[in-house]
Amino acid sequence: MAAEQKKPTSQLRFDLVSKDWVLIATGRAKRPEEFAKHERIKVEMAAKDCPFCNLATQGKPVLEYKDEAGQWEVAVIPNKYPAFAQSGGLNERAEGPYSIMDGVGYHEVVVTRDHKKSLAELEMPQIHKVIDAYQERYLELMNEKLVNYISIFHNHGREAGASIAHPHSQIIAMPLTDPDLQGSINGSRIFFENQGKCVHCKMIEWDMEDGRRIIYENDKFVVLAPFASRMAFEIRIYPKEHHAYFERIKEGDKNQLAEALKISLSKMAKGLNDPAYNFFLHTAPADGKNYDHYHWHFEILPKTAIWAGFEMGTGIEISTVEPEEAAKYLREIQ
Amino acid sequence: MAAEQKKPTSQLRFDLVSKDWVLIATGRAKRPEEFAKHERIKVEMAAKDCPFCNLATQGKPVLEYKDEAGQWEVAVIPNKYPAFAQSGGLNERAEGPYSIMDGVGYHEVVVTRDHKKSLAELEMPQIHKVIDAYQERYLELMNEKLVNYISIFHNHGREAGASIAHPHSQIIAMPLTDPDLQGSINGSRIFFENQGKCVHCKMIEWDMEDGRRIIYENDKFVVLAPFASRMAFEIRIYPKEHHAYFERIKEGDKNQLAEALKISLSKMAKGLNDPAYNFFLHTAPADGKNYDHYHWHFEILPKTAIWAGFEMGTGIEISTVEPEEAAKYLREIQ
Repeated sequence: MAAEQKKPTSQLRFDLVSKDWVLIATGRAKRPEEFAKHERIKVEMAAKDCPFCNLATQGKPVLEYKDEAGQWEVAVIPNKYPAFAQSGGLNERAEGPYSIMDGVGYHEVVVTRDHKKSLAELEMPQIHKVIDAYQERYLELMNEKLVNYISIFHNHGREAGASIAHPHSQIIAMPLTDPDLQGSINGSRIFFENQGKCVHCKMIEWDMEDGRRIIYENDKFVVLAPFASRMAFEIRIYPKEHHAYFERIKEGDKNQLAEALKISLSKMAKGLNDPAYNFFLHTAPADGKNYDHYHWHFEILPKTAIWAGFEMGTGIEISTVEPEEAAKYLREIQ
Repeated sequence: MAAEQKKPTSQLRFDLVSKDWVLIATGRAKRPEEFAKHERIKVEMAAKDCPFCNLATQGKPVLEYKDEAGQWEVAVIPNKYPAFAQSGGLNERAEGPYSIMDGVGYHEVVVTRDHKKSLAELEMPQIHKVIDAYQERYLELMNEKLVNYISIFHNHGREAGASIAHPHSQIIAMPLTDPDLQGSINGSRIFFENQGKCVHCKMIEWDMEDGRRIIYENDKFVVLAPFASRMAFEIRIYPKEHHAYFERIKEGDKNQLAEALKISLSKMAKGLNDPAYNFFLHTAPADGKNYDHYHWHFEILPKTAIWAGFEMGTGIEISTVEPEEAAKYLREIQ
C-alpha cells in the first residue's frame, strides 16, 4: 500500500454546515500507514474491580436487554458521577455580569457486557441492541421536562477521555443546545430555505458521485471522510435518505446502521492500530420544534492528533492527511 | 491546604463574549491537590538531536536577540513544516458544493536557547525578550499582503501537542479569521455598541471587586480564572487598562507582562506538577479594520482533562473544578 510521493499542500477548506474552516496541511504528514505505529495508552483494570462488570454496585439499571441465557447483555444505568443531574427548575440567575443556571438533566451509561470487547469486536446482534438502547432511552428522555437536547457519545481509550476501559457509551439529556451547535443546525435550516434542499443530502450526493471520500456503503447508509475533516481519518455515517430525527430510525434500518458502525470502527482499528477515538450522534434537538431540514449522522474522530494552542486559539483545526487519501486507505482495508 | 468538603454541584455558566456554555460539574471532581499527582508524559530528546539546539540546520532566522556574549538567546525561525506557507494568491475555488482556498501565510517558531528550561523557568529579562519577539514579528507580519489574523501560541508537553520538547512558541499569520473566533470578536463589538463599555473591562472590574477568581495582579496586569472556565485551572492574563491591540504594548508594560506570565506558569507548574499546557494570544485581527472595542489577553489552558465525545459533539465543555476554587488554590501557591 505504497503512497505516492506528493508535493505538500496546504488548503483551507470550509465546512458548509458549521461554517468552520479547517486546514489540510500535508507538509508534515505521515503516510497513512505510519499512523498505525502509534501505540495507544492502555489502562488495564481487572474485571473484579470494574464497576461495569459489577453492575449491581451501580444502582438500578433503567434498561436491560438480556441474552438467551437470561443474562444482561446491554444495560443502561444512571452515571454515578453525573455531569447533568439535578432535578427541579433551571434556577436561572445572574452573578454580576454573568449568567448561570443549574445543570438539570440526565446522564446515563450504556454498557455492553464483555469487559474487553470493543464495539467493533461485538457481533452484529449486540451492536443492534446498543442502537436499540440509544433509541429507547432517547425516546424516553425526550419527553422529560426541561430536556431540549440529547447527546449520545462513546469514548474509546484513555487518550480519548475514557476513564473506564470497559466499553460503554453515554447519554446526556440537557436543557439547552449550545450556540455553536445551534449555529450548525441553523446553517442547515438556512441552506434548506435558500436552496430547497438539505445541505447534508447535497454533500452526500456530491460525495457519492465523486467517490473519492467514500469509505463504505450499504443500501441505507454511507460512510465517508468529510471534505472539511478536522482530524486525520475523521469518519461520518449518514443515512442515505433524508432523515432528521435519529429516534425515528426504522427497525429494518438498524441492522444496516449496526453494519456501517461495525465496519467503520473495524477499519479504523485495523488500519490505525486500534486508536483511541470518540464518536457522537448529531441529530435534531429534542425541544419539540420542527427540524425537518436536518439530517442526523454519527461523527467518528480517532485521536490521530491533539488539538493544541493554534486550534484552541483560532478555531481552525489542522489535519495532516487529505480526506481523499484517508478514505482511500480505509476503503481498502478489509 | 485542605479543601472543604462541599456538596457536588452542576452549573451551566455562560461565556459573555464567546456565547459559549460551559458546565462546572464538581460531582466527579478531584480536589485541587490531586491534580498534582498526574505524571506528564515526558519525551526526552538529546540536545545533539534537537533541531532547535542546532539552529543552523533550520534555515536563516528571521530575528535574533543575542546575549552579552554575542550568543543567540531568543531566535525566530521559519517553521520547517509550515501549516500556512504558500505564497501567491488565495486561489479561491469551488469543488462541487464546497469552498476551498490555498493556505497562504507564514508559520514561524520562537525559540529560547536553553534546551530544558521552560518559559516559567527563564529569567525575567529572557521572558521580556520573548515578548519583544512576539511583538516585533507581529508588527512585521501584519503588513504582509493577505495577512488578516495572527495567532501566537505555545504548546508545552506532549499531551498538549508539543512535538519537540525544546521550549518554543509559534506564530501563524493567515488570511482569515475563523467564524467561531469572529463570533467572539463580534460579541465584544455588540456589547460595546449596546453598553458603551468593553465586555472584558466589565468582567475584569467585576472579578477584581469580587476577588474570588483573582490569582495574581501587578500594576498593569491581572491574572484570573475565568467565570466560564472550559478547563480546570484555566487562566487568563489581561491588561488592566483597555487595550485592543497587543502589538501596541508599551515598552514599559512588558516587564509586568513578563512577570504575570512567569508567575502564572510557575504557579501552574508548582501546583499541578508541571502539567502540559497550551497558551495563546487573543488580540484584534490584523486586517486593518477598527477593533477598538476589543481587549487583548492571553489564555492559558493546562491539560487537566481531555475534551471527549460530549465536548466535541455538543460544544459544551465540562470542567470539574469551580473556577473560584481553582483560583484560590493557585493564588496561595508561592
